[in-house]
Amino acid sequence: MDLTAFRAALGDIPVQDHPRIVQQKSRDHYWYSPRLKAELENVTAQLVVTPRTQDEVKIVLATAYKYGVPVTPRGAGTGNYGQAMPLSGGVMLELTSLDRVVSIKRDRVRAEAGIILEKLDEQTKAAVNGEMRFHPSTYRMATLGGFIAGGSGGVGSIRWGGLRAFGNLLALKVITCEAQPRVLELTGPDMLKVAHAYGTNGIIVEAEIPLCEAHDWVDVMVGFDSIQQACAFAEQAARQDGLLLKEISPVAAPLPYDWFNRHRPYIKNREQSVVLLMAAPPAVPALVDFIAFHKGDLLLRTDTLAEGERKKLPPIYELAWNHTTLRGLKIEPTITYLQTQYRDLAHVNWAIENFGEEVPMHLEMIRFDGQIVFAGLPIVRYTTEERLEEIIRIHEANGILVFNPHRYTLEEGGMKKTDRNQLDFKKQADPRGILNPGKMIAWDDPNFDFDIGRAWLFEGLKTLGAA
Amino acid sequence: MDLTAFRAALGDIPVQDHPRIVQQKSRDHYWYSPRLKAELENVTAQLVVTPRTQDEVKIVLATAYKYGVPVTPRGAGTGNYGQAMPLSGGVMLELTSLDRVVSIKRDRVRAEAGIILEKLDEQTKAAVNGEMRFHPSTYRMATLGGFIAGGSGGVGSIRWGGLRAFGNLLALKVITCEAQPRVLELTGPDMLKVAHAYGTNGIIVEAEIPLCEAHDWVDVMVGFDSIQQACAFAEQAARQDGLLLKEISPVAAPLPYDWFNRHRPYIKNREQSVVLLMAAPPAVPALVDFIAFHKGDLLLRTDTLAEGERKKLPPIYELAWNHTTLRGLKIEPTITYLQTQYRDLAHVNWAIENFGEEVPMHLEMIRFDGQIVFAGLPIVRYTTEERLEEIIRIHEANGILVFNPHRYTLEEGGMKKTDRNQLDFKKQADPRGILNPGKMIAWDDPNFDFDIGRAWLFEGLKTLGAA
Repeated sequence: MDLTAFRAALGDIPVQDHPRIVQQKSRDHYWYSPRLKAELENVTAQLVVTPRTQDEVKIVLATAYKYGVPVTPRGAGTGNYGQAMPLSGGVMLELTSLDRVVSIKRDRVRAEAGIILEKLDEQTKAAVNGEMRFHPSTYRMATLGGFIAGGSGGVGSIRWGGLRAFGNLLALKVITCEAQPRVLELTGPDMLKVAHAYGTNGIIVEAEIPLCEAHDWVDVMVGFDSIQQACAFAEQAARQDGLLLKEISPVAAPLPYDWFNRHRPYIKNREQSVVLLMAAPPAVPALVDFIAFHKGDLLLRTDTLAEGERKKLPPIYELAWNHTTLRGLKIEPTITYLQTQYRDLAHVNWAIENFGEEVPMHLEMIRFDGQIVFAGLPIVRYTTEERLEEIIRIHEANGILVFNPHRYTLEEGGMKKTDRNQLDFKKQADPRGILNPGKMIAWDDPNFDFDIGRAWLFEGLKTLGAA
Repeated sequence: MDLTAFRAALGDIPVQDHPRIVQQKSRDHYWYSPRLKAELENVTAQLVVTPRTQDEVKIVLATAYKYGVPVTPRGAGTGNYGQAMPLSGGVMLELTSLDRVVSIKRDRVRAEAGIILEKLDEQTKAAVNGEMRFHPSTYRMATLGGFIAGGSGGVGSIRWGGLRAFGNLLALKVITCEAQPRVLELTGPDMLKVAHAYGTNGIIVEAEIPLCEAHDWVDVMVGFDSIQQACAFAEQAARQDGLLLKEISPVAAPLPYDWFNRHRPYIKNREQSVVLLMAAPPAVPALVDFIAFHKGDLLLRTDTLAEGERKKLPPIYELAWNHTTLRGLKIEPTITYLQTQYRDLAHVNWAIENFGEEVPMHLEMIRFDGQIVFAGLPIVRYTTEERLEEIIRIHEANGILVFNPHRYTLEEGGMKKTDRNQLDFKKQADPRGILNPGKMIAWDDPNFDFDIGRAWLFEGLKTLGAA
């Protein structure tokens, strides 16, 4: 790597080398995991490059190829598996200046990768009353490209499944890292080569996604005496085909009272488990009836709240998904979490009973391959790495899928195995292997056993259901 | 019943008594069923009354109450279980002049009961780019009130479940049949008192329903060598959470070639089974990939068809749901059909193999209580009523639900049992029992066994999933 020559060749493309800024931009939310925190705390790039146009991205990649400089792309750095940690140093490719909306149609939008998700929705709502099908809980920070390269679903997955499910992405524009970088327009199954590949095999600079009708979503919080009741209610709410909900998340006591500080005034006591929901306005009356029918305690509905009260509250999705853990970490820095999937309520209840207060339950109801399932993000009151591994083993031995959020490689984390398409594409798109190095095991170890894994979260092609 | 006094008391409310017109308006599509055709062919009212306003409906009902005149409400008469057949004579209450749109908001519409569904959508599309969540295959003829009073779901049920599922109706305005008719605004679970009650316990004069985003739906037809392959493809397509489809219907060979005359040029041969689909424009590329992946034969997609060709074709939903049978009846008048529900593909395949050419398969993929299931409308090559009953018994003995479309009562048809709420409401709203007489067994036979039935299609409160 010849960083001096690399930098000189960039011309007036903005770079930053102030150590504190470089270190800050070399960080994502890897510190969610005590293991990753220890492993990655000394990782840093040497330079941050912030191209302003797609042509400048091409120049950066051609130059990096020429001088053998590792390139780790970065949106807002909100991933929490170390997706954007520059394991081999080199440069951070900051893409937040690529934030233009290319086109908005009634049913789709095309935009550059660096646009912040909330800003994207603001424009599509104004233009065609449309919004993204789903977004992560980091909606107000995360970028479109970062979500596609490093995320898998989120708020809205109860309706639309995962980001990689067929039909949820329309096109991705990718730039390769070669002597002469190519600009590729990927559509159909080809998109799965780079979606959720952490930028290891091409830089996503533009994406086209479908829109659905926008709603002024109403935040609803319901209390229950036990987490088991909350989970049972959540499953039944998810099954109501006519009830337009964007989010359904049960969280076990005492987390809501202890952690959701601005929502605490609405929670009766520490013993109350809650279900967090987002409902379209026409669904609210039916949801309220449904809550009464299930003897839930309607703690909060933002549509009838005084504006002053409402403005004090963060959106309820910022209590859900990875934000649940984030809020916990601020108050109890020693906790961590897992990512799991339970096929039915019996498995959820088994986990609740088996681990008790060591693993307080937090679920997200999602659609997965046409079925409603329980995605788990249970909190772990962490003691040792050995115990964490043991908890994972006990889950797996009882038929519960675990997607380990304490690993930074594609194979060991959410994907559970190497995607051969992604590996093959990396050979073409990144022949020197300098894009986000170290994240794809199979690249570094050609003898890696492709079949070691057991399951994918929001898998791609597999959901096509071929025989 | 004093019809002369009744008529005199109506003032200038339009009536018709020409025998041919009265007979024509005394008919629905009961002739789908050979049994109903024989039972009901001599049924007729004596008078047709066509109120122009809701106040006139009140006058008609007060007057009918006073003189004991049976009142059978009618929209477009497209029901095919005899829902709108005036079993006790009297008057047909034709509601098609109540066709005003009351209000359109971004996410909902309120309209009078007599508006034709297609006309309603035209207005909501123009105003807010919204459309009804679902509609019957008689979309271009049927009325809003008729659909709610006599229907249960249809095109769009793959996404939104049934009409009676929680959240699919927002409010119903109902007029009772009493000395002083009351105008009731029903919301929440109260709506289930009159939804799918055939107008036996109140006249629906206005409805408020949620809207979803409108699309220029693309009709797609896919060919397969066997109906089993078609059904397997249909199930997998339904499971694609990211693929926005409004209709998925497998139809067994040789029905498509023999019956879909204007689509015949696109079908390879008599041996080809097909799947009929409606896809939102952004879903079409992914659907085309998906079809190739499943080795389907893409026979038709209307988005790439020359306009002249496209205009020759009826919308594909007019090949589906009850229109499949309707088209068959025009060509093979001796056929009839069943309504079934199969819990999985194994049950579908069992039915296909067990009955062979006597019961050619026609399915509709739907969501039911949060799950994707197979709603069956299999064709029956009818021989005798005894054999038809035997076919039903064999289905039921093998764990397949049958909703008998050869019965005109609520209990014996789709509902499979008396809805106590509907019966109780009839006692209040129709104390003389003159609204659509003969359709609710429990009204005429108070000793009727409420628990005789086994299942409801698109059940109402039961899907609330209470313990």
